[in-house]
Amino acid sequence: PRGSYSDLEKKLLFAPKFDANGLIPALAMDYRTREPLMLAYMNEESLKMTLELGEAVYYSRSRQEIWHKGATSGHIQKVHQILTDCDQDAIILLVDQIGAGACHTGHHSCFYRSVPFGDAVKDGEPVVLEQADAGTCFDPDAVYGKH
Amino acid sequence: PRGSYSDLEKKLLFAPKFDANGLIPALAMDYRTREPLMLAYMNEESLKMTLELGEAVYYSRSRQEIWHKGATSGHIQKVHQILTDCDQDAIILLVDQIGAGACHTGHHSCFYRSVPFGDAVKDGEPVVLEQADAGTCFDPDAVYGKH
Repeated sequence: PRGSYSDLEKKLLFAPKFDANGLIPALAMDYRTREPLMLAYMNEESLKMTLELGEAVYYSRSRQEIWHKGATSGHIQKVHQILTDCDQDAIILLVDQIGAGACHTGHHSCFYRSVPFGDAVKDGEPVVLEQADAGTCFDPDAVYGKH
Repeated sequence: PRGSYSDLEKKLLFAPKFDANGLIPALAMDYRTREPLMLAYMNEESLKMTLELGEAVYYSRSRQEIWHKGATSGHIQKVHQILTDCDQDAIILLVDQIGAGACHTGHHSCFYRSVPFGDAVKDGEPVVLEQADAGTCFDPDAVYGKH
């Protein structure tokens, strides 16, 4: 039992809420620059491993398995701080991203494109993304192997 | 149809992925300091409203309704930039948080507590959160009314 909302918000017992699939969203940010790097999910086991190891461990929804980020690429995420929110259904990891980047596309961050809004969007027309970073910074085929 | 993963990652057509409940996670960050403020969810309609208004509009899972953040409190979030990730299943809003804070508890950010990890956690013992901000910065009863 996680307790009442008031307990979850005001008390200090860590009681993370996993969704119907047993997952909690976790956003990794660079601990120095606060650049958002990636949003992934953790199950109870991967969250426990993250707390124990001090390195980001996610749950891969596509592969349906524990995913120790960087275990194959070497691009691990060393945890500097972990935050949770008022109702404890989200996690933020402030990390030291080892290696060139977090994203399997070769970009430093998965958030490499911006979405236009306001006057830049015309009703009924497709929304066209804009590049928001300086481009890829490593060769994913070299780091992860061809697949 | 959203197209292949390669299309989603490399092309520039905005084709956000909503989950089985029709929702996509959206993290709001302060556009100046990059402080993470809150993680909420959008459905297709609230995302469209966000793009049109240039203010954060979420979908409240608890109230099951469109939630124009700040419509009652005045604490709106003016959007400066919107980012999406490689597979377009997450959104980041870089916002100007109007008013004292984003969190209904009276904290500036919902992420006001940190989770200890590594040697600070003892196996089998409860995990005790630590305060990670300077405390509340507004009186939620005054802003939102008693409830």
